[in-house]
Amino acid sequence: MDPGAKSNLKIAEKRGQARALPNGTILFMSATVSTDSAVAKLRQRAYQINAVSMAIGLMDWDQQCYMPPGGADARAEHIGILSQMKFDLETADETGRLIENAEREAAPNSEDAAMVRVMKRSYNLATKLPPTLTAEKNRLGALAHEEWVKARKNNDFATFAPWLEKMFDLTRQEAECYGYTNHIYDALIDLYEEGATEADCRRMYDTLKASNVDLIKAIGESPIKPDDSKLYGTWDESKQRAFTEMIVKEIGFDMTNGRQDTAPHPFCANFSTTDVRLTTRFKDYIGSAIFGSLHEAGHGMYEQGSPKKWDRSPLAGGVSLGIHESQSRTWENIVGRSKAFWSRFLPRLQEHFPSLSDFDLNTWYSAINKVQPSFIRVEADEVTYNMHTLVRFEIECDVLSGKMSIKDIPGAWNAKYKEYLGVTPETDSVGCLQDVHWSAGLIGYFPTYSMGNCLSYQFWNCLTRDLGDVDAMMAAGNFAPILNWLRENIYQHGCRYQPKELVQIVSGKPIGAEDYLEGLKAKYSEIYAL
Amino acid sequence: MDPGAKSNLKIAEKRGQARALPNGTILFMSATVSTDSAVAKLRQRAYQINAVSMAIGLMDWDQQCYMPPGGADARAEHIGILSQMKFDLETADETGRLIENAEREAAPNSEDAAMVRVMKRSYNLATKLPPTLTAEKNRLGALAHEEWVKARKNNDFATFAPWLEKMFDLTRQEAECYGYTNHIYDALIDLYEEGATEADCRRMYDTLKASNVDLIKAIGESPIKPDDSKLYGTWDESKQRAFTEMIVKEIGFDMTNGRQDTAPHPFCANFSTTDVRLTTRFKDYIGSAIFGSLHEAGHGMYEQGSPKKWDRSPLAGGVSLGIHESQSRTWENIVGRSKAFWSRFLPRLQEHFPSLSDFDLNTWYSAINKVQPSFIRVEADEVTYNMHTLVRFEIECDVLSGKMSIKDIPGAWNAKYKEYLGVTPETDSVGCLQDVHWSAGLIGYFPTYSMGNCLSYQFWNCLTRDLGDVDAMMAAGNFAPILNWLRENIYQHGCRYQPKELVQIVSGKPIGAEDYLEGLKAKYSEIYAL
Repeated sequence: MDPGAKSNLKIAEKRGQARALPNGTILFMSATVSTDSAVAKLRQRAYQINAVSMAIGLMDWDQQCYMPPGGADARAEHIGILSQMKFDLETADETGRLIENAEREAAPNSEDAAMVRVMKRSYNLATKLPPTLTAEKNRLGALAHEEWVKARKNNDFATFAPWLEKMFDLTRQEAECYGYTNHIYDALIDLYEEGATEADCRRMYDTLKASNVDLIKAIGESPIKPDDSKLYGTWDESKQRAFTEMIVKEIGFDMTNGRQDTAPHPFCANFSTTDVRLTTRFKDYIGSAIFGSLHEAGHGMYEQGSPKKWDRSPLAGGVSLGIHESQSRTWENIVGRSKAFWSRFLPRLQEHFPSLSDFDLNTWYSAINKVQPSFIRVEADEVTYNMHTLVRFEIECDVLSGKMSIKDIPGAWNAKYKEYLGVTPETDSVGCLQDVHWSAGLIGYFPTYSMGNCLSYQFWNCLTRDLGDVDAMMAAGNFAPILNWLRENIYQHGCRYQPKELVQIVSGKPIGAEDYLEGLKAKYSEIYAL
Repeated sequence: MDPGAKSNLKIAEKRGQARALPNGTILFMSATVSTDSAVAKLRQRAYQINAVSMAIGLMDWDQQCYMPPGGADARAEHIGILSQMKFDLETADETGRLIENAEREAAPNSEDAAMVRVMKRSYNLATKLPPTLTAEKNRLGALAHEEWVKARKNNDFATFAPWLEKMFDLTRQEAECYGYTNHIYDALIDLYEEGATEADCRRMYDTLKASNVDLIKAIGESPIKPDDSKLYGTWDESKQRAFTEMIVKEIGFDMTNGRQDTAPHPFCANFSTTDVRLTTRFKDYIGSAIFGSLHEAGHGMYEQGSPKKWDRSPLAGGVSLGIHESQSRTWENIVGRSKAFWSRFLPRLQEHFPSLSDFDLNTWYSAINKVQPSFIRVEADEVTYNMHTLVRFEIECDVLSGKMSIKDIPGAWNAKYKEYLGVTPETDSVGCLQDVHWSAGLIGYFPTYSMGNCLSYQFWNCLTRDLGDVDAMMAAGNFAPILNWLRENIYQHGCRYQPKELVQIVSGKPIGAEDYLEGLKAKYSEIYAL
């Protein structure tokens, strides 16, 4: 043990020269780049923004996975300060100048041009809001969050209503600052899914609704009632950890360039394309860990598949929330809830958990695909999920455009749940107060979940056309062709193309709900003998 | 599971408004401080520097404890960029102005004045070096480190010598920039132990050498040879983890505000006074985990004892390497290698590891305090340790002042080891090439280890005078009075006083080796029947 190296580290830092890590490794500062290339200068600025962003990301990850309870206050302050630094870097006049210069220099349609485009978009979005509006929303958000916690606890929408009113007002002002052509919602959804519009969402949801509501009804009326009661119980955590690590490794998540930890709410964090962190959780429903791990591994493999050459740059990683979700849903639902997948893994699962030995492949397949309309979005199955986001989308649009007043939200919410899902929330706490997002002014992105669902099947159909009998591959544990197809067709493009361009490149058509609905119908007609 | 919150986080960040954590928690930015107080403005600057510093610290911790192998390249880049940002913040003209203004405002001898003093010192140190010199040392350090690795591997001092020559040259230039009155070494030791001088070190080592060399010789000639062979073996890691966590909790390390993980080289990291991370390691020597954990817990409890009001500010935490080491050594050696401590814990250790059941309290006590002169500093026992740092101190002084040339280091090294420890390194690889530090230009701080050793006994004597029968307390597991005494007398002062002032406040006299030597003599005379 070398008890001094660690303290020395502080001093080395102070001297601004070297970084002595506790194991004696010495890290040296990046040499100052002296180059005349405007693109190279902009890239250096991007690397700075990335470094601060990754510091924040690591603080998040640590907070969810390992931070002792006492660390929360300082962590909030640290993240606050670093977020401000990041914002200052992104919106600095110097950043604007670097972008202008690089824009003149980059060859049209080059990778450099794509990088400049992505940075310009971020810069424009960040600089369009007046600081006073941002500050007001921050303050309101902090207070509204507390009010939301209380309101949900007390099932008291009325006292939360004025806060929500104000939050929608500020979001409306924001949208006006960002600007839009057709619908105010366009300005907001674009923040999360570049180029998407209210009309796109409406088109997708119209198709979804027409078919999905009928499917849900038909399933409800089917005499077949899959029994998943044996999936609830007490499950040894270390066995769950071992099993989920085994499956995410087998499908292709690379543990040399990643890891899996436990967190209260599963997520995927990445600090480079070669350092991607999954988290999972262990609950009384055995599927929670399994499908959570597969879902996050889908996000993670997208990040791991981003080209190394773009690492730490604006072109690295997943391009939008919708495309990202398409990948998590592919591995969670299309692969992870398939019969072929479980023909391989059910025996191994039963080795870990003998109490599941009563299941055969068919009863297990039905059980993990049980459709059950509920009030709660985050627990929704594959068939009902989109109806949850539809409710939010419709209400957000109507409130933003002034067609619905805040006080009418609970009534509208419950009516829509009845219409689309056939259930009525017993309280607002499990109804319109269930999500944290509105209290924080995070309005305009629920449709990206449904885009992900639709795109997962849309891309999968292209994949199976190219690869042939994918079921046989999965049953044999041969996941490499699947992952390679996704890498070659999607992941290798990083953020080079806008989401809509990418969808066109991959599937030869714009996003639609048709492939998804066909896929669902085929799958659930079999399970429920429709 | 809420698969979208995590991605949304990136967007919220981009908007610079709110931080939605994966669990739905929303963190908001620190409100902009608008105050006319110059001290408050300086404190905000300190908080910024602290946030970047803690980000770097977390990246270090994560790299040692959890980062997958693939993360190393990006991590080095991230730390490099953040280190530069930190340095830029520390040395900005604006920081200098903030310090000047705050200095005029702060009441003499106030806490504010102390904060200004600490920041002024950092600013002065950081701005005294010309950037060209720093850059040159960075470049040289990167290359010299590689050369050192090769030289140690090949036992080839000659090819490393020119690099070391250049590194000492640059360090000499640095020292000239910092300035000093009496000895060039003063400028360097001050970086690690504010106010310490070559004369202080020389005085301490003269006293140490006179007595320690004789003690080592007497122990070597004693017919008593403690047998610690049974402490080497294969030890279940989870049991080692459980036992070490139990003892660090019992002595008072607070797991609500900290945790313990595993790392290749033990260290203590802290991100606030309420988030302190220990690490330990598991080796074939059972004492490695036990004494490593106690050592790091000593560092950790010092950090946890820092006043909450100063958290994240320059007054928080341990004041110098020497004082810090005094606390790690207190818990590792004075407490952790005492008979009283083991009268409580040996039975519990034997429950965990039945193969240790042959030991009774006396044979165990002798075994863990076995004195064995060796070549390797990091494995040295309590009695021989200071002779290792003395060798380095003397050589550094002579080379810096021009009395010794680089080529004469191996000869001087081996002669001194023979004289002080009675052993001669078989090769330079286990001799003057064993430490990483010189290759990185980390020259001038080895004496802080010995200061820590001396101060641990000097403070302990004050503690026992105040508390009475401390052995009885330890034997009863009543560690609270000990920790409270240290908190009240040392930890509560954070960095408010300079190390020398603090030593005077705590012990009523300057640092000396006398208490330490007396303590050693009493302890080892008993063990070795001298």
